[in-house]
Amino acid sequence: MAEEFRYQQLENWLLQGLQGERWRLGERLPSIRSLCQDQGLSKATVQHALQRLEAQGWLEARPKAGYFVAARPANANPPTSRARIDSPRPVTVSELLLDIMGRSAAFDLLPDLAAGELPPGIEALNRAIGRALRRQRGEGHQYYDKPEGNLALREQLAIHQGRRGWQVAPDQLCVTSGCQHALFLALMATCERGDVVAVESPGFYGVLQLLQQLGLQAVEVPSSPDSGMDMDALEAVLERWQVRAVIASPAFSTPSGALMPLDNKQRLLALADRHDLVVIEDDIYADTALGPAPDPLKALDTDDRVILCGSLSKSLSRDLRVGWISGARWHARILHLKLVTQLASSRYLQQGLAEFMADGYYAAHVRRQRQQLRANRDQLLAALNGWPADVRASVPQGGLSVWVELPEHVDTLAAYPRGLEEGVVITPGPLFSVSGQFGHCLRISYAHPWTADRVRALGKLPALLL
Amino acid sequence: MAEEFRYQQLENWLLQGLQGERWRLGERLPSIRSLCQDQGLSKATVQHALQRLEAQGWLEARPKAGYFVAARPANANPPTSRARIDSPRPVTVSELLLDIMGRSAAFDLLPDLAAGELPPGIEALNRAIGRALRRQRGEGHQYYDKPEGNLALREQLAIHQGRRGWQVAPDQLCVTSGCQHALFLALMATCERGDVVAVESPGFYGVLQLLQQLGLQAVEVPSSPDSGMDMDALEAVLERWQVRAVIASPAFSTPSGALMPLDNKQRLLALADRHDLVVIEDDIYADTALGPAPDPLKALDTDDRVILCGSLSKSLSRDLRVGWISGARWHARILHLKLVTQLASSRYLQQGLAEFMADGYYAAHVRRQRQQLRANRDQLLAALNGWPADVRASVPQGGLSVWVELPEHVDTLAAYPRGLEEGVVITPGPLFSVSGQFGHCLRISYAHPWTADRVRALGKLPALLL
Repeated sequence: MAEEFRYQQLENWLLQGLQGERWRLGERLPSIRSLCQDQGLSKATVQHALQRLEAQGWLEARPKAGYFVAARPANANPPTSRARIDSPRPVTVSELLLDIMGRSAAFDLLPDLAAGELPPGIEALNRAIGRALRRQRGEGHQYYDKPEGNLALREQLAIHQGRRGWQVAPDQLCVTSGCQHALFLALMATCERGDVVAVESPGFYGVLQLLQQLGLQAVEVPSSPDSGMDMDALEAVLERWQVRAVIASPAFSTPSGALMPLDNKQRLLALADRHDLVVIEDDIYADTALGPAPDPLKALDTDDRVILCGSLSKSLSRDLRVGWISGARWHARILHLKLVTQLASSRYLQQGLAEFMADGYYAAHVRRQRQQLRANRDQLLAALNGWPADVRASVPQGGLSVWVELPEHVDTLAAYPRGLEEGVVITPGPLFSVSGQFGHCLRISYAHPWTADRVRALGKLPALLL
Repeated sequence: MAEEFRYQQLENWLLQGLQGERWRLGERLPSIRSLCQDQGLSKATVQHALQRLEAQGWLEARPKAGYFVAARPANANPPTSRARIDSPRPVTVSELLLDIMGRSAAFDLLPDLAAGELPPGIEALNRAIGRALRRQRGEGHQYYDKPEGNLALREQLAIHQGRRGWQVAPDQLCVTSGCQHALFLALMATCERGDVVAVESPGFYGVLQLLQQLGLQAVEVPSSPDSGMDMDALEAVLERWQVRAVIASPAFSTPSGALMPLDNKQRLLALADRHDLVVIEDDIYADTALGPAPDPLKALDTDDRVILCGSLSKSLSRDLRVGWISGARWHARILHLKLVTQLASSRYLQQGLAEFMADGYYAAHVRRQRQQLRANRDQLLAALNGWPADVRASVPQGGLSVWVELPEHVDTLAAYPRGLEEGVVITPGPLFSVSGQFGHCLRISYAHPWTADRVRALGKLPALLL
């Protein structure tokens, strides 16, 4: 039996035990040694299965103590709201939603820039940028960088992607001012005013605003907290309307943190091929995975039609303003658009960042942050567990937020101004759709540590909302 | 007699003397004290007149020695080519021109990033950014900055503009990723695909590329090295075609360094008012003035229709990627476009820059650089003086380049690849137009010091071109 099947067999057996509560929350699983003996498997095979279950959030590894059943408190109670499929339409975003979007970009119930500690990763990053600045000699400041960006940085980004199973050459990457800038370049390079773009619903509001500004039409495709964009629904949409592009976040789409399974990815690419679609992959959350980062959709792209957009904003620093794009068959046009709309990115900043990555600080930062994010998520899910029983919540394995579904009568949009009065910024569900759906849903972020103040803010939500 | 008329009278008298060679090149003018006595004027009035002549390039102030007649070697021989007025047309930029534009963005005959000394201004800037980085505490890196940018920086920019006679509130300024980004936001906020935009001819190729990418049509308005865009020509264009916007650089338009006189500015605004135009002011060269920076057109804008776009790229560092926009009646839309296409700019970078400006380092840098640019310009003009008599050159009082007109038969585009073979990057005239004009012209930059290598590169040009 191939190694592949051995670990899958063990994984399935363990999964059944976890679902059937043979091992309960917080309980320790049998040791690796005893699993090896009982199942007649190698240590590597057993570890592989355990790590996969850890990545899925079932288990938590504690150094020198073994694997424990992790908190999945709301898992039996996932959100069930499903988006309607409406005709493609131009996007109009109301002033209220714009205001909320502006304030909610921080992802934080209680924005506080001064609180918390500077993580060691950011300290190392700042030192590296400072060194690059001090090394500056001659007349480098008198020249613009090339539009594609610093080669050393693109090499580091390519190495980083290679670890996820996507082999990319540095010349297929272009540095951008963050992921939103990359999404903008992707849409501008491939779509004409009036074109129809398929988006996840609920999905990222920044994409909806881009569609509005570029005069594109949106068609919303239902997306589930478990597996992301629904491929049956996408297929129905593609058969009914002429769609130019589809934008999806296979690795932890916001707001729910959904992870697209491999067979859905393959189906998406097959549909894209059949309907000659541009596929824009918003990969910004990949490095927020609670386990190993999943392979990008782009790694399966044999037809050169997936434009990957990524950034360090969610995994390292929102203030760095560095992202990237790999533009597939449209790459040359994207490079030119970056040149024309912005000329270049700062060379010394890229040099500092490249050194930070080459020295291994970024990988170490992502590892440390993973532990923190898991703890943040679990604390949020535990708190939501104390809410009334008809509250449903996604259990993300990555991303930075939980999608919460409240009873149908709740109006989260109406609760928004009441929240502001109490100093709490909520992110109402209708932000994540162009058609006013999800009025009884909201996104709650776990990007920030649950300080006493944030715990208090979270504690105010049931009274505010229910 | 009002103070205003006294200094003008003296200025005119001195100007006649300079034009009539009463005082010759390099000669010292009468002292301030003797001018006061002879003309019966106050010291302040005499100084004001002398400074104005200095700003126009007639005089050079030498500390403790007085005012000397400055080199204006090619002044009697300005370029005379005048652009044709063609119908508005979509912009198409050939691959060859794109290649040249990419290489020529450095503004340098002989690009060499390692040569030269790091100016003290850049050292101070890097120290200030480094301090801002080291001061970073808490979770600031977890939040995006506001789209309009850091308030401390906008306050410094407002103070800086106030010194030029443009009183602007910080909330009328939005920080951008350079001037090209500002021009892009201005066009995207005000024009629809197919709209006609009037541009200077010869004019900035970056604008032409933006028009192409946004699907806008260009109509070229002849621009002279002396006074910039020709107002008679603009008026004729506006009467014949429906124009949506006009883009001009009143303060030292590239390639010639033309400075638009006050009455032309007033006429431009009157025309804009009559034809309901958007006026986009490309102000990037203001701080490269060889004298005091001229007032912006925006300072005269009583009708809230001038969008000013500026940057520190030409006066401080191209690698900083910081510019600004003041969007007049379209400012809210521009802010939103910046948010949607890029979210924000880096907060710590802006903080460092704000401190650098508040500490007076920027003003000092501009003063030092002015001396250097004047010397660079004079050396270039002196070299051009040694070229055959039928070579004509602009004598800019600001900007970073001289516009050179060669005999009609010369083909600068054909000379470009020959130059590359010899390691010399020239900037052929057809780059500065959408209609293939100016084949016998080229732009030569004086942004960089004339090192021995650059002098040799410049020395190769006559053989290459003539």
